[in-house]
Amino acid sequence: MGMKAIGARVQRTEDPALLSGKGRYLDDIALPGMLHAAFLRSPLAHGVIRSIDATAALDAPGVHAVLTAQDLPEMLRNTRLPVMGSSPQQTQVMTPYALAPEEVCYVGEPVAVVVADSRYLAEDAAGLIAVDYDELPAVANCRDAAQAEAPRTHNGSSSNKATRFKATIGDAAAAFATAPHVFRQDMWQHRGCGHSIECRGAVAEHDPLRGGLTLWSSTQIPHIAKHVLCDLLAMDPESVRVIAPDVGGGFGPKAVFYPEELVVAAAAMKLGRPVKWVEDRREHFLTAVQERDQYWDVEIAVDGEGRILGVRGSMLHDGGAYLPWEFSLPYIAAVTMPGPYRLPAYDLDVTVAYTNLPPASAIRGSGRPQAVFAMERLLDRVARELGIDRAELRRRNFVQPDQMPYPTGLTYRDGRAVVYDSGDYPTTQSMALELANYADFGRRQAEARAQGRHIGIGIANYVEGCGVGPYEGVSIKVLDNGKINLRSGAAPTGQGHKTMLAQICAETLNVEIEDVIVTLGDTNAIAMGVGTFASRIAANAGPSALGAAQTVKAKILSLASRLLETPEEDLVLEKGRVEARHGNRQGLSLGELARRAKGSPGVSMHRGDTPGLEHTSYFTPAQATWCNGTHVVEVEVDIATGGVKILDYVVAHDCGTVINPLIVDGQIQGGVAHGIGNALLEWMAFDPNGQPLTTNFGEYLLPSSTVVPTVRIAHLETPSPVNPLGAKGAGEGGTIPAAAAIVSAIEHALTPFDARLNMSPLTPETIIKSLKQSPNYKAALMRACAG
Amino acid sequence: MGMKAIGARVQRTEDPALLSGKGRYLDDIALPGMLHAAFLRSPLAHGVIRSIDATAALDAPGVHAVLTAQDLPEMLRNTRLPVMGSSPQQTQVMTPYALAPEEVCYVGEPVAVVVADSRYLAEDAAGLIAVDYDELPAVANCRDAAQAEAPRTHNGSSSNKATRFKATIGDAAAAFATAPHVFRQDMWQHRGCGHSIECRGAVAEHDPLRGGLTLWSSTQIPHIAKHVLCDLLAMDPESVRVIAPDVGGGFGPKAVFYPEELVVAAAAMKLGRPVKWVEDRREHFLTAVQERDQYWDVEIAVDGEGRILGVRGSMLHDGGAYLPWEFSLPYIAAVTMPGPYRLPAYDLDVTVAYTNLPPASAIRGSGRPQAVFAMERLLDRVARELGIDRAELRRRNFVQPDQMPYPTGLTYRDGRAVVYDSGDYPTTQSMALELANYADFGRRQAEARAQGRHIGIGIANYVEGCGVGPYEGVSIKVLDNGKINLRSGAAPTGQGHKTMLAQICAETLNVEIEDVIVTLGDTNAIAMGVGTFASRIAANAGPSALGAAQTVKAKILSLASRLLETPEEDLVLEKGRVEARHGNRQGLSLGELARRAKGSPGVSMHRGDTPGLEHTSYFTPAQATWCNGTHVVEVEVDIATGGVKILDYVVAHDCGTVINPLIVDGQIQGGVAHGIGNALLEWMAFDPNGQPLTTNFGEYLLPSSTVVPTVRIAHLETPSPVNPLGAKGAGEGGTIPAAAAIVSAIEHALTPFDARLNMSPLTPETIIKSLKQSPNYKAALMRACAG
Repeated sequence: MGMKAIGARVQRTEDPALLSGKGRYLDDIALPGMLHAAFLRSPLAHGVIRSIDATAALDAPGVHAVLTAQDLPEMLRNTRLPVMGSSPQQTQVMTPYALAPEEVCYVGEPVAVVVADSRYLAEDAAGLIAVDYDELPAVANCRDAAQAEAPRTHNGSSSNKATRFKATIGDAAAAFATAPHVFRQDMWQHRGCGHSIECRGAVAEHDPLRGGLTLWSSTQIPHIAKHVLCDLLAMDPESVRVIAPDVGGGFGPKAVFYPEELVVAAAAMKLGRPVKWVEDRREHFLTAVQERDQYWDVEIAVDGEGRILGVRGSMLHDGGAYLPWEFSLPYIAAVTMPGPYRLPAYDLDVTVAYTNLPPASAIRGSGRPQAVFAMERLLDRVARELGIDRAELRRRNFVQPDQMPYPTGLTYRDGRAVVYDSGDYPTTQSMALELANYADFGRRQAEARAQGRHIGIGIANYVEGCGVGPYEGVSIKVLDNGKINLRSGAAPTGQGHKTMLAQICAETLNVEIEDVIVTLGDTNAIAMGVGTFASRIAANAGPSALGAAQTVKAKILSLASRLLETPEEDLVLEKGRVEARHGNRQGLSLGELARRAKGSPGVSMHRGDTPGLEHTSYFTPAQATWCNGTHVVEVEVDIATGGVKILDYVVAHDCGTVINPLIVDGQIQGGVAHGIGNALLEWMAFDPNGQPLTTNFGEYLLPSSTVVPTVRIAHLETPSPVNPLGAKGAGEGGTIPAAAAIVSAIEHALTPFDARLNMSPLTPETIIKSLKQSPNYKAALMRACAG
Repeated sequence: MGMKAIGARVQRTEDPALLSGKGRYLDDIALPGMLHAAFLRSPLAHGVIRSIDATAALDAPGVHAVLTAQDLPEMLRNTRLPVMGSSPQQTQVMTPYALAPEEVCYVGEPVAVVVADSRYLAEDAAGLIAVDYDELPAVANCRDAAQAEAPRTHNGSSSNKATRFKATIGDAAAAFATAPHVFRQDMWQHRGCGHSIECRGAVAEHDPLRGGLTLWSSTQIPHIAKHVLCDLLAMDPESVRVIAPDVGGGFGPKAVFYPEELVVAAAAMKLGRPVKWVEDRREHFLTAVQERDQYWDVEIAVDGEGRILGVRGSMLHDGGAYLPWEFSLPYIAAVTMPGPYRLPAYDLDVTVAYTNLPPASAIRGSGRPQAVFAMERLLDRVARELGIDRAELRRRNFVQPDQMPYPTGLTYRDGRAVVYDSGDYPTTQSMALELANYADFGRRQAEARAQGRHIGIGIANYVEGCGVGPYEGVSIKVLDNGKINLRSGAAPTGQGHKTMLAQICAETLNVEIEDVIVTLGDTNAIAMGVGTFASRIAANAGPSALGAAQTVKAKILSLASRLLETPEEDLVLEKGRVEARHGNRQGLSLGELARRAKGSPGVSMHRGDTPGLEHTSYFTPAQATWCNGTHVVEVEVDIATGGVKILDYVVAHDCGTVINPLIVDGQIQGGVAHGIGNALLEWMAFDPNGQPLTTNFGEYLLPSSTVVPTVRIAHLETPSPVNPLGAKGAGEGGTIPAAAAIVSAIEHALTPFDARLNMSPLTPETIIKSLKQSPNYKAALMRACAG
């Protein structure tokens, strides 16, 4: 009787502690003698520091140090932070310094740090630092930045363009030359933030006794953070430990190693005291990475039946002041454009421009929402122009299951071909349509209209290259008490990795999930790790957990077979014991076996044995896995206010093997909430000088529980052939097509007004502006108000 | 041009820090908020605790807690400490509790602990604890204890005999029945201590933030200590870390996990503050394990040419109050008896008796000095009786090199046959004799006698089963900065393990020894470890280092070959770089390769690659390796005072492959010093009630630099076939035969008085007593005084 854990709706083992206030987040860390840091940040979007006078700040009560760039170790003074995920081409891009030594390129860029007895004293003292700046012209929009005559976003650079590249399939010019229909469309998605509940933060302690520098950071990437610390502080990797304690959300912004983490570490080493810094929400608005600003100008060529012949055009990506993940986002957007559709010809000209805005890097979806938005809006346009039902049009264009594995014809920036590994896109869409009762929507809409209500339905499909390498490792060890320890570099930020990995281990070793003790987020727990981003943990750490557990199981059975003098095939591993299947059912507990496996001091081991019941496996996927899904959303638009109410939200989702439906459903639900924010609410606003205008939750709106419906979810499972678990990724699919689906639904609701909606977020103001262009609007509004 | 490090006389990398005061020993550890512990110990060798009144102690200034057994966690209250190296038979033996709950069985047994702001305050308060004891009769000698009518050493036990077993080869009765000559001899070696420069000590800190309990202990066995802590504190092994900082000598007593380590940990957990305890010298005399008390009554049967036909008799071993390593010592003694000699028949009847003395466990040599003493004294007796030169007699009896591997016919307690793996005993002895100019000694002796001086020469041979399993592991990793990190569970206590392991790694990877950063003595450094005892590190961790380095080298070359597009055979790994042997000599540094080997976040790895340039190897020897040696010592005895002066000390030594002659020579020199103490000085004295009489270095004499000569050393290397390095062990060979050789030399010096010396230590008093039995003594003394 085997324990069936993979695929089971297992309650998250993380939750009891977190829900009862026993979580240990970064700000819960209090070390003896700990000091507190506050950063002095640039008030200008662009300027040059002429001088810094810290005299008054140093005299302020409780202040231990004021550090500027000049006070940092030499290497930190002169070295920009490395890019996180550099391409094999090792392009040169702008990244920040730990503290700006001379030039500041966005509002909020760290200029100095005050270390004091409390955060209050540190902030007060920071206000006493006098910095003399030469203000320089700032560029607050990538379209402006891309102009040749634009002021330079970084002093002395020859252009604001960070790169320009092409993504191509086939011969787009030829396809467009002969196409029966071509439709062109501008599209834009605006910048927003990640806004994890917990902001960023770091505590550093330098203590040679425990082996050196320990940095606790609210990060998604402890192992990468460690590498950067070692490089920039010139430390032996063995004397640096990074711990991500409980982390209250990541969503991408915490997959960047930030100047503040480095400065806090350097300050702790310099002062010989632990130093803590916790980002406040205003700092998060100013300095955590942001994403989405892309301008697309694309056209689609189709035949008379709406079959896609080609897509071409250009895309302009806002890189912000720095590019911590280099060109990852625009590349991802470019290769995501084809989506689940056969695209015989494609020619996208991508430009990345620096601006004097906060650095741009991945936020849940990471370039994909923009590409999906572009493609899905184009398809809606085609459907409207040719009078084809939107679902039917998509159906006609799907890559078919029997075409898998399907090379799209694109290559990624690492030079590898983009190949969809598995999936059944037509079935996924059918499931979503059925669950949403799409066939009946015409009736519902007619009924609503008769009541003066404007409802609409939207569809969007996506594929997502997720589960990217290079690897993630898992160590599994049977402990002396019979419990199983599992360690991995897969640092969680709330996804339930502990539960998911425990399930794989528990099923393989046929133990209770509670008996698997999972240690994550600590660079001391496993030699190597990458981190949590790109929906990569299930497809990287998952197979590693499987591989490690299988090897440990083989060791268990081999040892038990010898000790019990019973062939392996006659043994049962069950409930933490190995027993002989027949006879007297003599057996040994896993704890006893673990002790025996360690051998006895001074006694030789059985020839060929290796000690211990443990194994570490690093699974290295040969390529990304490609999950997919269909979102169908039903909305009602209040044409008087422009308010949008989501009536129903359906997701059909294929992330390969579903290890825990509860977790996947949670990811989808949360992802959709994120997507609703993107579609309707979240707008990070700046004035023309690059001054942020929305720096609190009164000005920047997040979707609340009254806005976000319970998402209804259907799963299809087409296991990935890329890894033995068949797992893909589930972290971002809730977000990626949401804006496309919601805007589609709004447009559909506003069909009587022939609204054309090609941006997000779509605020009430924008909707009203669009409605006002319709000759039908005034009369409809009168009817609605009367009714 | 390969780096030749193995076998080189490399300066110890440990020494610059240690010699310049930068060592970090246990007592150097100071943690914020740390409290200090002092133990209240039993003043009786045997008694029952009626009541403990801690009121006054609790009221004393600075006292935070007074803990007795009743105040410990339940598991600690009721569980005796485990045996360290239990035999597969899992015999039940007496071990101590953390704190004596009821019965005390030796003077010094911990009864309570006071935790206070300082050690002074803690000791003062400990003096205020009132314990009401019922005194019970104590047994202070194992010969008394073995008597049926003796008082019981432990209340309620049916006998003081812990075990009785036999070691046999062939048919001893038959051999003795027909032997031309049989000689019988009583022998005795007395109890002494280990006396590392640094006493024991422990600091415990319980901090969930850093993952739980950290115990710093001046121990030889951090991994075993961790297992015991987990078991007895019911802790998840992942939340316990044991660190052995710099340790000032071990010699065996620190290969035991002691009650104090456990109590300090429990106190730190209970109080939520770090707690430190450092053993003072008096405590070390009372409570650190002691060794050597064995009574041998054996006879040897030889033919007319002095060839050994058999040995038989009995041995009584003093176990002290507890047996932390079970019967390890008497078993080792029993199988060591045959030594390098062919022994066709053997029958030793071994009894282990408890006494009310400090627990007995291994001190450098661990049972072997006693067995070698017994055999070598018997051979000297045969030589004298049959008029054969002592060296010649031994030569006639050696196992020959062409008999290797040589099963002695004995089995060890794990049921495995005792098999000598390699060695050339005749050559080893010849080398020693030559170096000592043995052939000329007769002339020197005659010359001295003519001057009224009494000089003698002694010879002793030994073999030592060392390098025992079960394993020791080594992890090797190339760091991003190109340096190599090596980690192992092989905790050093001054042997130079870091240098030795770095040599193996450096030679294999062809880097400088300084570029190998070695981390030892930390259970977080490597998943599994055993510890340092039984001269086992070179033969266990050594081959692991070799294996791990070889695998890492293969990874380096494979990766470099692909990146440099050059076949592996055309690559040179040299000076931390891999370069193409031909052409432009393009290359990559180890640091660059390490970075490339980690892969790039989000980028798939080359198919088949595993990330990182690292490997962990656990070498598991199939059996012990058997090193051997010959000691030849020349002494002068002052017949007026009984004083002995060592004129020359020669060791010929075969420990297989010599990895670092400087280190091996140091081990031999130190070991001989230890042996000189055993032979002449160290006498741990007790009164008949078990009260220790020698509890400081005024009463208990250690060999000082004026006593210990510079040992002259010759090496023979017969590599062991048990491991690929060919290494055996070198830590104890300096000690094992020393007492036998020195007593032989003294007896030889005193030939004119026909002295019969069959015990150690041989104090001046004993020598004089022996001399006084000689009719020649008075006259000789007169002549000497006159001269």
